[in-house]
Amino acid sequence: MRVLVTGAAGMIGRKLVARFAAQPRIGGKSISALDLHDIVPPVSPEIPGVEVSAFIGDLAAEGAAASLVARGPDVVFHLAGIVSGEAESNFDLGYRVNLDGTRALFDALRVAPGVPRVVYSSSIAVFGAPFPDVIPDEFHPTPLTSYGTQKLIGELLLADYTRRGFIDGIGIRLPTICVRPGTPNKAASSFFSSIIREPLAGKEAVLPVPKSVLHTHASPRSAVRFLVHAAEIDGTLVGPRRNLTMPGVAVTVGEQIESLRRIAGDHVAALIREESNETIWAIVQNWPTRFEARRARELGFVAEQRFDEIVRAHIEDEAAAASPRQRVERLLQR
Amino acid sequence: MRVLVTGAAGMIGRKLVARFAAQPRIGGKSISALDLHDIVPPVSPEIPGVEVSAFIGDLAAEGAAASLVARGPDVVFHLAGIVSGEAESNFDLGYRVNLDGTRALFDALRVAPGVPRVVYSSSIAVFGAPFPDVIPDEFHPTPLTSYGTQKLIGELLLADYTRRGFIDGIGIRLPTICVRPGTPNKAASSFFSSIIREPLAGKEAVLPVPKSVLHTHASPRSAVRFLVHAAEIDGTLVGPRRNLTMPGVAVTVGEQIESLRRIAGDHVAALIREESNETIWAIVQNWPTRFEARRARELGFVAEQRFDEIVRAHIEDEAAAASPRQRVERLLQR
Repeated sequence: MRVLVTGAAGMIGRKLVARFAAQPRIGGKSISALDLHDIVPPVSPEIPGVEVSAFIGDLAAEGAAASLVARGPDVVFHLAGIVSGEAESNFDLGYRVNLDGTRALFDALRVAPGVPRVVYSSSIAVFGAPFPDVIPDEFHPTPLTSYGTQKLIGELLLADYTRRGFIDGIGIRLPTICVRPGTPNKAASSFFSSIIREPLAGKEAVLPVPKSVLHTHASPRSAVRFLVHAAEIDGTLVGPRRNLTMPGVAVTVGEQIESLRRIAGDHVAALIREESNETIWAIVQNWPTRFEARRARELGFVAEQRFDEIVRAHIEDEAAAASPRQRVERLLQR
Repeated sequence: MRVLVTGAAGMIGRKLVARFAAQPRIGGKSISALDLHDIVPPVSPEIPGVEVSAFIGDLAAEGAAASLVARGPDVVFHLAGIVSGEAESNFDLGYRVNLDGTRALFDALRVAPGVPRVVYSSSIAVFGAPFPDVIPDEFHPTPLTSYGTQKLIGELLLADYTRRGFIDGIGIRLPTICVRPGTPNKAASSFFSSIIREPLAGKEAVLPVPKSVLHTHASPRSAVRFLVHAAEIDGTLVGPRRNLTMPGVAVTVGEQIESLRRIAGDHVAALIREESNETIWAIVQNWPTRFEARRARELGFVAEQRFDEIVRAHIEDEAAAASPRQRVERLLQR
C-alpha cells in the first residue's frame, strides 16, 4: 500500500515516519511506498522494501495537492498545519495553510479515483470555555482561537467529504502532547512539557501557572498509536460522526511534578521554579481540562493510564534517540 | 445608517425589505440607505427618506463583496445562500456560494474600516441525528448535509472574525419557516407548509409522513423579528458564543392539522390527503425535533407560543399581500 504523510517534518510526523521505518505495516498490510510532504525537507529514512519519496512545498499552492494525490495513496495522514500561536499572530497564513491547504487536499482526493482512508490530526483546541467538569463527546465545539476554528472547519469538511463518498475520513482530536522532545517554545502550553523534560536533562524549568491547573495529556507514543489505529479502524463502526476526541491522562500540574519526583527524585523535581506569568495563566484558564472520550475508548483508542507512564515513555524515547556522546554527557550530569 | 442585505430576493429577504419599507429603523436609528444584493434582481421598493440601491451578481466573484462593502454598511444581513436540496445536488455550487461567498463577504469586511454588525442566517441543519429529546444549546453540531456543513462553517468564520474584531457578528439558526408563501417546492420540508397553505387556498395537499412527526416551526414574521432583533442586540450580552439557536413552536404534524381545523374548519382540513413517501420519511427521521433555545430566549428572541398563531399570521399576511382580484377569487372559493 502507498501512504502519504503531510506535515512529515513536524514532531508527530517524524515519530510516525519512525514507526513506519520500524514496522512498515498498517493493519497487517505492508507499506510499499511512503510519500512524505512538508514545507521544509522531511527526514526520509531508508526502509527496506519501501520506496520513500520526499516532497517539499505549499499544499495550498495550485496543483500541489493534485500531484501528490495522483500517486494514488491508499492511506493519507494529514498532519500539516500552522500551530496555534502562529495561526493567531498571522491570520492569513493560518487560514491559507490550515483551511485552504486542507480543502485543496480533500478536493484533490475528491476528483481522484479511489476512496483512501484519510486520518486528520485535529485538536482539543476546537473546544472553548466555559466547560463542564468533564467534556462529553456531545459537547459543542466553540473554538476561541483561529487555530481551533480552522481545525474544526477541517473536521467538518472531512465529515461531509466522507458522507459524500469522496474520502474515508477519521479525524482525531489530540490532547496536549507531553512530553514534547526538543527545546521550550513560545506556545503557551510549552511549560507542560518543559517542567518534565528540562529537569530530566539537568536544567531548570519555569512553572508559570498554579499547581492546581488540571489538563489532559498523551505521550508522543500515544499520538502515533492513535494515528495508526485511526488508519486501521473499521469505518462502519465509527458511523457518520467521524471526528473523535482522543483519551488522555487528566492530571494537575502538581500531580505531574509528584510523578517526576517519584521517578527521578527530589533533586530533579527541585529544578522547577515557580514564577507566575499572568499572560500564560489567562490563556490556560480558557483551556479544556478533562474529556470523557467515551466513543474513542469504545473504538479501541488507548492512552496512558497514569502520568508516570508518560514520564517513563519520554525517558526511554530520549535515551533511544540520544547519540553515544549525548548519553555520556547525560550520565556525567547525574 | 446604511444597511446591506444579501439574498434580498429570497423569501426572507423580501419580507425583511418589506419590514424596512414599513419601518425604516433598526434599534431606534433611522435607515438612510438600503443596499440590496442578490444573484437575481431583488424587489427594491421606494421608501421615503431612504436611498434604495439594487445590486445583481455573484458574491463569491472577484471584487463583488469588496464593492458592496466599500459603500460602508453599518449593518449587514447576510441571507444569501444555496438552499439545502440544491447544495446537496450541486456540490461545487453549494460550497462556492455558501462557503466562498460568505468568506469573501467577511474578508471584505475585515479589511474595510469600521466593524459593522453582521447578522448571519444559519439553520438548524447544522445539527444531525441522533438527537436527545430536547436539543440543548451545548449540543454538538454534526451536520448530515453539505448545506448544514456550509452553514456551520459560516458560523465558525463569523465567530472567529468577531473575536478578532473584524466584524460584530450574530448568527441565528432558524427553525423551519412555516407557513412559507408561494407554491410547493421540491424541498423535503415543503409539506410542513403545504398542508396549511394549500387547503387554506382551497387546494388539496399531500401529507407524506406519519402524523406523529414532531418538528419546530416559526413564522416568516418571526424570522424577520429574529433578524431585526439580532441587529439591535447588545453584543456584550451575547459573549463569545455568537451563534444562537432560535426558539420556535414544537408540534406534531397531527397538531398542525388540528390547528388548521380549529381555525378554518373540517372541510379545509379534509383537503389533506395522506400518501406516505418513503424517501421523504427517511429524510425527515434524521431531522431535529425540539430545541431548548434557552440562550436565545434569555436574549429576548421571541417566537410564537402556539401553532394557531402561525396559521393566523399566514392568513393575515396572505390577505395583505393579495391583489384585489386575488382577494375576490379567494372569497369566491369559500
